[in-house]
Amino acid sequence: MTSRLPRTVDQQLRARAARVIPGGMYGHMSTALLPSNYPQFFSRAQGAHVWDADGNRYLDLMCAFGPNLFGYGHETIDSAFRDQLDRGDLAPGPGTLMVDLAEQFVSMVSHAAWAMFCKNGTDATTMALMVARAHTGRRALIRCTGSYHGSAPWCTPILSGTIPEDRTHQFSCNYNDLASFEAALNAAGDDLAAIIVAPYRHDAFRDQASVELAFARRVRAACSERGAVLILDEVRAGLRLARDSSWATLGMQPDLTCWGKSIANGHPLSALLGSERFRDAAAGIYVTGSYWYAAAPMAAALETLRVVRESDYLEHLERLGERLRKGLAAVASRQGFGFRQTGPVQMPLFMFDDDPDLRQGFCWSSEMLERGVYVHPWHNMFLCAAMTEEDVDFTIQAAEGAFAALKSRLATLEPHGGIKTLMSAR
Amino acid sequence: MTSRLPRTVDQQLRARAARVIPGGMYGHMSTALLPSNYPQFFSRAQGAHVWDADGNRYLDLMCAFGPNLFGYGHETIDSAFRDQLDRGDLAPGPGTLMVDLAEQFVSMVSHAAWAMFCKNGTDATTMALMVARAHTGRRALIRCTGSYHGSAPWCTPILSGTIPEDRTHQFSCNYNDLASFEAALNAAGDDLAAIIVAPYRHDAFRDQASVELAFARRVRAACSERGAVLILDEVRAGLRLARDSSWATLGMQPDLTCWGKSIANGHPLSALLGSERFRDAAAGIYVTGSYWYAAAPMAAALETLRVVRESDYLEHLERLGERLRKGLAAVASRQGFGFRQTGPVQMPLFMFDDDPDLRQGFCWSSEMLERGVYVHPWHNMFLCAAMTEEDVDFTIQAAEGAFAALKSRLATLEPHGGIKTLMSAR
Repeated sequence: MTSRLPRTVDQQLRARAARVIPGGMYGHMSTALLPSNYPQFFSRAQGAHVWDADGNRYLDLMCAFGPNLFGYGHETIDSAFRDQLDRGDLAPGPGTLMVDLAEQFVSMVSHAAWAMFCKNGTDATTMALMVARAHTGRRALIRCTGSYHGSAPWCTPILSGTIPEDRTHQFSCNYNDLASFEAALNAAGDDLAAIIVAPYRHDAFRDQASVELAFARRVRAACSERGAVLILDEVRAGLRLARDSSWATLGMQPDLTCWGKSIANGHPLSALLGSERFRDAAAGIYVTGSYWYAAAPMAAALETLRVVRESDYLEHLERLGERLRKGLAAVASRQGFGFRQTGPVQMPLFMFDDDPDLRQGFCWSSEMLERGVYVHPWHNMFLCAAMTEEDVDFTIQAAEGAFAALKSRLATLEPHGGIKTLMSAR
Repeated sequence: MTSRLPRTVDQQLRARAARVIPGGMYGHMSTALLPSNYPQFFSRAQGAHVWDADGNRYLDLMCAFGPNLFGYGHETIDSAFRDQLDRGDLAPGPGTLMVDLAEQFVSMVSHAAWAMFCKNGTDATTMALMVARAHTGRRALIRCTGSYHGSAPWCTPILSGTIPEDRTHQFSCNYNDLASFEAALNAAGDDLAAIIVAPYRHDAFRDQASVELAFARRVRAACSERGAVLILDEVRAGLRLARDSSWATLGMQPDLTCWGKSIANGHPLSALLGSERFRDAAAGIYVTGSYWYAAAPMAAALETLRVVRESDYLEHLERLGERLRKGLAAVASRQGFGFRQTGPVQMPLFMFDDDPDLRQGFCWSSEMLERGVYVHPWHNMFLCAAMTEEDVDFTIQAAEGAFAALKSRLATLEPHGGIKTLMSAR
């Protein structure tokens, strides 16, 4: 086991944060629902590795929850960013390369005729909903239970601070479940404006699942039949499954796609791309933000898209992912654990059989962390192209120790308090 | 008159943008409602100056609509940003200096006990509304007609793509108008969750106005009496009126303040700050974004706040603003124009008397642009601390020529088509 430094700086920072940040931290980067040894604060990131506030180094399988596609501080992407920062970032209008970026992105995403750039994934999904409502003149939205599409009042997974009116005209179905989808369609009736769906089921706290072709086809057909808008939310999976929108591999074209996270390799940029017939509706909505037109993140995105087109990063991610999945499966099986690895190999999620309150997953993850690998016990993870076969083998080796440690601790495990509450409420 | 290069590159970019960006451009940085000679795209920004795509240099009185407080590419702020970028920007959690930043910001804003960071000004205002609703368990919001608080469906100034339910439980009053405020209070009744208000009236298309003390006091008192939340939207004016929240100079404390634009001198960061009693409500809402925890913009914000505390930038802005206002008033009066300069001197807005469709303002602005000064004909402008007395005198000299040119063109002016439509609809 790699020797770990004590996390005293992290503890001191947490104590200070508790005074000036509500709950000590908020959102998806809070460690409130992670094992207690997980660091809250980080001091460094480079390539596939991060360092916590106390100087412990980890191979990072979260990739900042997705944005890190090619490695933290990627040389040519960050050079493009810095060079543009030298010339100018903000101005009274966008930089010239906004046009280049829109052209390049649109040329890569086969359904798309136009692009709008923004800052949050939530901006892109909210804009998609607005474009759909403007285009159709209707109100209803169908979404899948448990799917995350952002944290605005209409979609945040926790209702505190929202009012019922934020979600009127929303109808839900279960991902891949045709019967529930037809019921939602019936409920929406003539008022259906849009269906928003992730390219595959990457919900937290449960196994991931590929989209079933019949489900994708029915969703597409229903939108076409009813003149409703098919919104594919690529914020999390975009560019990790395809160099086009993710359903292009199924031969299926959405109407609007929402992008974020990976498109500028971590520099702040998100985007809404749309098919030709939604152009007028998109031109008619008023959406904007102080930093949306900043040139430096767009320079980073241009270079990111170039690397996407010109490198074999996707095949590399798939090879690494296969190696990891196979290696972990062998170790788990050897040590007698029912260890489920779901989702695309480059975006894995790990769950233990017979572990309803995740106590085994938490123990195993905390043991992985102590061995220098940052994994997540209930959210899908991400590989990045800066990872190597050695990194994968290091992970498998760490898992060997983590499974052994888990086995020795099995009898005395207690569930995490927050997770216990959450799971019993589901 | 400064000789200007032809805007052929800009025209070429616009033609390309028309194909891949809806309407050619969207949001507040579209030139659709600006004089036809205004450039859409920029190639460079440094200090108080920007260069358009064709290489024309302008003194920039828009400061990117506010973010540029200390000059584009400010040496120590951008150094702090770059140094943090070298160490790490994104990671599976926030950087250590998020705690420093929250502490520093809270220590400067006298009502605040805690801070949450986000990316858009709209994020901060939306979070404020959520915190208010979570805290009070009520729904109603009072806002002022014409005041901009962001571009989410609940607040965007153009309704296309929104549905009536996005604004249920909203009641409006006129800024500084006690009678309409009392009527809104009555309408909200027992359901009042919050009042959101800008520190002074900086609405587009009309003269700006300071907040009247009686209005501010009544708004504060009404919130206190009813247990509702007073949200001060500082996104546009923050740090340009005070080194604290803007109503601190009136001896008045809001409950929540929304910040953006200037707080990291253009690096993407916004924030919600709150008083102690709203801490639990803030901890209970779920809001987040992929880039919200990025460390480099926070490093820039820390340095920006240091310069705010330790320099005389505010007094410098006021001195420059006074000099500009006095100089322009003298020139306008000498040439016989009724030229209204409203708002704080460091955030001026210019309007011509007897100019209901803004044809004079458009002509004058386009003549200023030709003389190397980027002004806005209907949105408030911003001074930055990188400006000098020479820049102000250059502006006044340009105005001398612009007023003369306007006089010679007065008889043949036509209104801008888009503005004519807009104004006749008001």
